[in-house]
Amino acid sequence: MTHPPLGDMLATLRETTPLVHCMTNYVAMNSTANLLLAIGASPAMLHAPEEVAEFTVIAGALSINIGTISSSWAASMALAARAANEAGTPWVLDPVAVGATAFRQQVCTELLAHQPTVIRANASEVMALTGLTSQGRGVDATTTTEDAAQAAIGLAQQQRCIVAMTGETDFITDGTHHYRLTGGHSMMPRVTTLGCGLSALVAGFVAANREDPLTATLAALACFSIAGSRAGQQASGPGSFQVALLDALYSLTPDDLSSLSQLEALHAV
Amino acid sequence: MTHPPLGDMLATLRETTPLVHCMTNYVAMNSTANLLLAIGASPAMLHAPEEVAEFTVIAGALSINIGTISSSWAASMALAARAANEAGTPWVLDPVAVGATAFRQQVCTELLAHQPTVIRANASEVMALTGLTSQGRGVDATTTTEDAAQAAIGLAQQQRCIVAMTGETDFITDGTHHYRLTGGHSMMPRVTTLGCGLSALVAGFVAANREDPLTATLAALACFSIAGSRAGQQASGPGSFQVALLDALYSLTPDDLSSLSQLEALHAV
Amino acid sequence: MTHPPLGDMLATLRETTPLVHCMTNYVAMNSTANLLLAIGASPAMLHAPEEVAEFTVIAGALSINIGTISSSWAASMALAARAANEAGTPWVLDPVAVGATAFRQQVCTELLAHQPTVIRANASEVMALTGLTSQGRGVDATTTTEDAAQAAIGLAQQQRCIVAMTGETDFITDGTHHYRLTGGHSMMPRVTTLGCGLSALVAGFVAANREDPLTATLAALACFSIAGSRAGQQASGPGSFQVALLDALYSLTPDDLSSLSQLEALHAV
Repeated sequence: MTHPPLGDMLATLRETTPLVHCMTNYVAMNSTANLLLAIGASPAMLHAPEEVAEFTVIAGALSINIGTISSSWAASMALAARAANEAGTPWVLDPVAVGATAFRQQVCTELLAHQPTVIRANASEVMALTGLTSQGRGVDATTTTEDAAQAAIGLAQQQRCIVAMTGETDFITDGTHHYRLTGGHSMMPRVTTLGCGLSALVAGFVAANREDPLTATLAALACFSIAGSRAGQQASGPGSFQVALLDALYSLTPDDLSSLSQLEALHAV
Repeated sequence: MTHPPLGDMLATLRETTPLVHCMTNYVAMNSTANLLLAIGASPAMLHAPEEVAEFTVIAGALSINIGTISSSWAASMALAARAANEAGTPWVLDPVAVGATAFRQQVCTELLAHQPTVIRANASEVMALTGLTSQGRGVDATTTTEDAAQAAIGLAQQQRCIVAMTGETDFITDGTHHYRLTGGHSMMPRVTTLGCGLSALVAGFVAANREDPLTATLAALACFSIAGSRAGQQASGPGSFQVALLDALYSLTPDDLSSLSQLEALHAV
Repeated sequence: MTHPPLGDMLATLRETTPLVHCMTNYVAMNSTANLLLAIGASPAMLHAPEEVAEFTVIAGALSINIGTISSSWAASMALAARAANEAGTPWVLDPVAVGATAFRQQVCTELLAHQPTVIRANASEVMALTGLTSQGRGVDATTTTEDAAQAAIGLAQQQRCIVAMTGETDFITDGTHHYRLTGGHSMMPRVTTLGCGLSALVAGFVAANREDPLTATLAALACFSIAGSRAGQQASGPGSFQVALLDALYSLTPDDLSSLSQLEALHAV
C-alpha cells in the first residue's frame, strides 16, 4: 500500500490557516489554542447559543470536547454540531470520560446524532461509546488500544465516521481502512489536555483537507507522533516537554511527515 | 516633541503593584494573570454578578475582554463597567472578534455606553466598532493597521477614550495625539491571547498612572514591544517564546522603556 | 520528635496515582492539572450538578477552590462537598479571597458546613475565615504568617480539620500539632495559581494517604518547598520558573522529602 500523502496535508494546512471553532473544556482551551497556532491553524473559542451556529458556518471545522461539560454548554454544542452537519462543515467529537457518568453518556448520545466526521478518543472512551463494558474512571485510558480495535471499527461503521483511538499505540479506522501509528513519548500522558488538543488538531487538518478526512486525521496524529518524540528527547520533565512540543510542531515540515516510518496500514485487525 | 516618560510609568507600577480586576475569556485567564504578575501588577479574576461591582471599586482598574462571552458574563461585565465608570475606576475594553457575529456587536454596544478609558483592539475590531465594513473572521486581524488609523481616530473622538490599535505596527490615539510603535516579533501572533493579556497590561499601567492614561497605555505597549523583541531573539518556537516573554517582562527596567527608539509621535496621519 | 515519614507519602502517591476531583477556578485549571500530573496524581475537572456527586464518590479526594466562583458553581461545589463528606472522601477547601466580598464569605460559610479535611489558605484568608479583621484585597496575602498562627489553630479546632496556611513561611496545624515549613523561592508569588495548585496537590496526597492526612498535607507542602527552591535556582524569570517547577516536581524522590531540613515541629506557638 502506498504511504498516504501526509506531508501534503500539512502543506495545505499551512497555506490555508484554517479557522477552527473550538468548543472545548476550560482546562484545554489555552493549550489547544497554542497547539493549533503552533502547527499553523487559527483557533477561535466561543460557545454562546446566540452565536455558535452563525460562527460554525464560517469556520473551516468545529471541534467539540465535553471535558468540563454542563447542561448549558451541552445545549450550545448540540446547536453548533447541528449547524455544522447541515452546512457540511466537518466536525470532531472528543467524548472525554464518557464512561464515567450517566450525564456524559446522555450528552454524547445527543451529539452523535449530528454525525461527527471524526471521533478522537482513548480506548476506554471508544468502548463506552459502543456500549461495551468499560473501566473508565475519568480521563485516563485503562483499556489497551489492541483490545479496543474491534470496538473502534464497529463504532466507525455504525456512525459512518472516522475513529481515531489514541494511546501508546494509535488505531485509526473509517470502518474499512485501518491504520496503526506508534511514536510519541512516554511523557505525553504527564502533560494535561494533549489529547484534547490533538482532537482540535484533527479538526484543523480536516478543515484544510475536506476531500480526504481519513488522511487528514492520520496527518494530525503523525504530527503529534513526530513532535512528541522530538520533544521527549529534549525534555527533562513535563514542563520542558510542553515547551518543546509547541516548538517541535512549529518546526515540523511536510517532508518530516512524508518520511514517517511509524505508520502502518493494516489489512486485517 | 519630548519622548513621553514611559520609564516613570513602569517605575510607578512596580512601586504600587496595582490590583487589576480582569473579566476576560477562558483562554486568556491564566496567561493574562502571568503577564500581569511578570510585569509587577496584581491580577484578580472574578465575574459573579453578586460581587463584581463591589470589587471593581476597590481595584485599581478593570479590564474587560469579550473573547468567550455569554449572556450571563455580558450582564456581569455591564455591571462592572457601570460601577467602574461611576467610581472613576479606569477600565479597558478588548472587543474580541466584534465583527464576527451580531451577538458580539450587541454586547460591545452596551459596554461602550459605560465609557471605557482605553479600547485595545486589532484593526478589524476597530473598524467593526466604528461601523465600517470589516472582514473580521474571528480573532485575527485581516485589515492593515495603516488602513484603520482614521477609524481609530474617529473612534477615540466619538467615545472620548484612548484607542490602542495593535498589530505589526501599533497605532495609539486619544483623538488628538497620535503615536506609532513598532517592535515586537513575528512569532507573537503564534502564541494565543497575547493581545488579550496586553489589554490587561494596559489596565495595570493606567491603574498605576491614572493622571496620564495615554502615556500609561504607550508604556504598556512599549513593554510588549521590547520584551517581544528580546523573547524572539531567544526563542526557537512559540513554546519557548512564551516562556522568554514572561522572563523578559519580569526583567524589564524603566531605563529600557526610556531608551525605546521604536515610538514615534505623529503630527498628522 | 521524629521527622514525619514524608517520603512514604510520596511513594504511596506514585504507586496509587490517586484520582483527584478538582472544582477550581478557570485561571488555575490547566496549571493545577499539570502540577498533579507532574507529581504523579491523576486530575479530573468537572462541575455539572448532574454528575459531581456521582463522581466525587469514585474519586480519591475532592479539591474545591472558589477563585472564580458563581452562584451555579457554588451550588455544585456544595453538592460535591456534601457527597464527599457523606462518603468519607477527603476534601480540601481553598477559600480564595474570602475576605474580599460578602458573596465569598457566604459561599465559604456554606462549604464549611460540609467539614473539609484540610483548609489550604494564605494568612489573610485564614483570618477572614475566623472572622478576624482582615486586610485581604484579593488573592494576595497582606497579613504575615506569624500573626495568623493563632487564627489558624483556632480555625483547625473549631472546624476539626487541618489548616495549611502558606506564605513565605508555611504554618500547618490540626489544632494540636503544629509545624513550620520554610523553603520555596521568592519567585513563586510571581507565577499565578501556584497556591491553587498546591491545594489540589494536598488533595492528591491525602487521597493516597487517608490514614494520615496531617503528614500527607506536610508532604504536599514539602514538595512545593523543595521543588520551588530547585526551580528558583534554574529560572531567570517567572516563565522559566513555571517550567522548572513542573520538571522539579516530576523528578522529586521520596528520599528528597525524607531528608528535608526546613520542616520544624513546634511545641508551642
